[in-house]
Amino acid sequence: MKDFKLICTACGKEYSIERVDPRCDDCNEPLEMELVKKGKIKQGNPLQHTILERYSDFFPFNEIRNDLSLNEGFTPLVSISRIAKRIGLKNLYFKNESQNPTWSFKDRGTLFGIQHAYSLGYKKVGAVSTGNMAVSVAAYGKRAGFDTFIFVGKNIPAEKLNPIAIYGAHLIRVDGDYGRLYYESLNIGRKQGIYFINSDVTYRVEGYKTAAFEMCEQLDFDVPDYVVVPTSAGGNVRGIYKGFLEFKEAGIIDRVPKIIVAQASGCSPIYNAFIEGKDKVERVENPDTIAHGIENPFPPSGNAVLKMLKENGGTCISVSDEEIIIAQKEMAEKGVFGQPESCVPLAAVKKLRQQGYLTENDRVACIVTGSGLKYTAAFEKHNLKSHTCKLEELNNFIKDNF
Amino acid sequence: MKDFKLICTACGKEYSIERVDPRCDDCNEPLEMELVKKGKIKQGNPLQHTILERYSDFFPFNEIRNDLSLNEGFTPLVSISRIAKRIGLKNLYFKNESQNPTWSFKDRGTLFGIQHAYSLGYKKVGAVSTGNMAVSVAAYGKRAGFDTFIFVGKNIPAEKLNPIAIYGAHLIRVDGDYGRLYYESLNIGRKQGIYFINSDVTYRVEGYKTAAFEMCEQLDFDVPDYVVVPTSAGGNVRGIYKGFLEFKEAGIIDRVPKIIVAQASGCSPIYNAFIEGKDKVERVENPDTIAHGIENPFPPSGNAVLKMLKENGGTCISVSDEEIIIAQKEMAEKGVFGQPESCVPLAAVKKLRQQGYLTENDRVACIVTGSGLKYTAAFEKHNLKSHTCKLEELNNFIKDNF
Repeated sequence: MKDFKLICTACGKEYSIERVDPRCDDCNEPLEMELVKKGKIKQGNPLQHTILERYSDFFPFNEIRNDLSLNEGFTPLVSISRIAKRIGLKNLYFKNESQNPTWSFKDRGTLFGIQHAYSLGYKKVGAVSTGNMAVSVAAYGKRAGFDTFIFVGKNIPAEKLNPIAIYGAHLIRVDGDYGRLYYESLNIGRKQGIYFINSDVTYRVEGYKTAAFEMCEQLDFDVPDYVVVPTSAGGNVRGIYKGFLEFKEAGIIDRVPKIIVAQASGCSPIYNAFIEGKDKVERVENPDTIAHGIENPFPPSGNAVLKMLKENGGTCISVSDEEIIIAQKEMAEKGVFGQPESCVPLAAVKKLRQQGYLTENDRVACIVTGSGLKYTAAFEKHNLKSHTCKLEELNNFIKDNF
Repeated sequence: MKDFKLICTACGKEYSIERVDPRCDDCNEPLEMELVKKGKIKQGNPLQHTILERYSDFFPFNEIRNDLSLNEGFTPLVSISRIAKRIGLKNLYFKNESQNPTWSFKDRGTLFGIQHAYSLGYKKVGAVSTGNMAVSVAAYGKRAGFDTFIFVGKNIPAEKLNPIAIYGAHLIRVDGDYGRLYYESLNIGRKQGIYFINSDVTYRVEGYKTAAFEMCEQLDFDVPDYVVVPTSAGGNVRGIYKGFLEFKEAGIIDRVPKIIVAQASGCSPIYNAFIEGKDKVERVENPDTIAHGIENPFPPSGNAVLKMLKENGGTCISVSDEEIIIAQKEMAEKGVFGQPESCVPLAAVKKLRQQGYLTENDRVACIVTGSGLKYTAAFEKHNLKSHTCKLEELNNFIKDNF
């Protein structure tokens, strides 16, 4: 490992780059790898190397193991001008993270967690999750040939369990408080030598930097004015922001976009603290939103995200389930079908444009975190239409009706 | 449009590049764009352009409309050495087409069909399909702002209907013979000005060339010995083969891989004709396989594929549903979860290695056509396991059992 440090996001205490425990011993806030201030993008064809290799200057690994990769990242940045025009923006981009190996953004973070686990000689990895992260860690853990442990709640429905189970990891339904399970997993990890690549652990956050790096390349280093990130634990938005910061420090881009943290009204602990001017999140009781992937009532990186927003000058906003569903349909009708949490950014952008926060000269990028196929229950919220017609009447039916 | 011709795959009759009707007026066999013999890969960063631009020398379009694209293609070629070793091959690659915008290979072909439709001034497109192609044409048609018509069978279940309907195309359940519907759609298309981008139409096949182009780049122009393609209508395998041929003609690669056409035993019209030495496929009665995406009883490019195999010197093989399910699990346990038809190539490779057709020095690439999330009924065929444990007993449970 290179000579970088881990630093507490709150108190600044320093730790070794090899540390696995993701939180500060003193203040229990998340640790972060120090800002990388020098580096270049590896030249050459992205079709011939991984994100680990392309951006290796910005990561601590001396030995890169491409056989741990499933060729994640290098996802599209799709410009949808018709939505931009309708809302009144100069440009609106969708970073389509559903085109990753397990069809969500989690794969970036998982890869870097796995790479760190490998660097330290671990042969066991794990995750506490019922959604995209469980799938991703199961896939990458098995790819690496590691003993892979996925802890889920006892009452997880089959439709969520099966897409995890297919990868063949040790899948354990745990009977007990799901919130406690996160912390208990870290204890078990220490005792059993299992590296838990949970939601906002240090190297997962590092992996998310690569989405920012790619957006810089995709826009030929003319970064958007705003980047909108659906936010739950806070790991993804922290990583994306850090990516822009590092490219700025390295002289690759000349400014950092403003970050917009987007939450669902049914579970918006970061938004609640932000509008009240607090620097600590409080637990949301009875979270309830269709955007299950961002339904974290007490986000472990919540305080770090609040601090980040203050530094960056961005904002935080929440949107209703109804607004999310409308955004999901609007995106699908332009060819991008995201799961509900992936549509929170568009709903947020529309609201911020109406409020005048965003203006007609702004260029905005939304992060589409995962595939619409991940949560088929959302179909029921749409009034999906089809027609029925006899074959022999089909030509006239079309002539008369369309 | 450039000065290329369309040529009948059977009788050689020539047609204008602008022709929409995909079949020969004389012999009713599929038309194909003439082989492009000169061209270069566009230099520059694939993160900054589309497959339309990167490989534009090999396509007839003068004006490229990137706003029709959803940034399809540039999908991973994942090397899985542990499976290669177990089977006894030098290298085994998986071209993971599930990382496309609608999570299947169809998007490549749809894009080029849409581009052709646009070039000719069409404002309406359509498809007859109940699976990946319906989803893909719905997404791209709406992306382009076209009136988009999807014809499906009357009794399509909701689980297949909803992922098409979400894109907002005109979705018509047609009461009548589904086989006749394909031909009727071409008639309606002529009358109503709808460009039907069905399974093996000329420009869909052209689009599939790009998967071959990418594999050449990904392997630094040292092509694999064999490429294995799950085959239904025959459009994908024809396109992939043509892509290698064109790169060979252009001097970009120095040989063309052998092509392996892989079918499911429950519906293998091309295999049946191949082993009997026939040059015409015959309709399969009562097709029945879990690989629904390749369950075409009378493939419209079947004869063209047989001719292609003779020219190329490759082979054709069929595998059972049981072999497909085993292959699906093996791939998932290395991180690549494909829908059943996507796992037919691995099952085929294992069989061909056992038969001695493939040998230990061979490098083989399998096409993973679509995401495992597309067909969740397959989960029932697996004996998927999970454990249940109380939170307070979790540490001991793991210590004792793994």
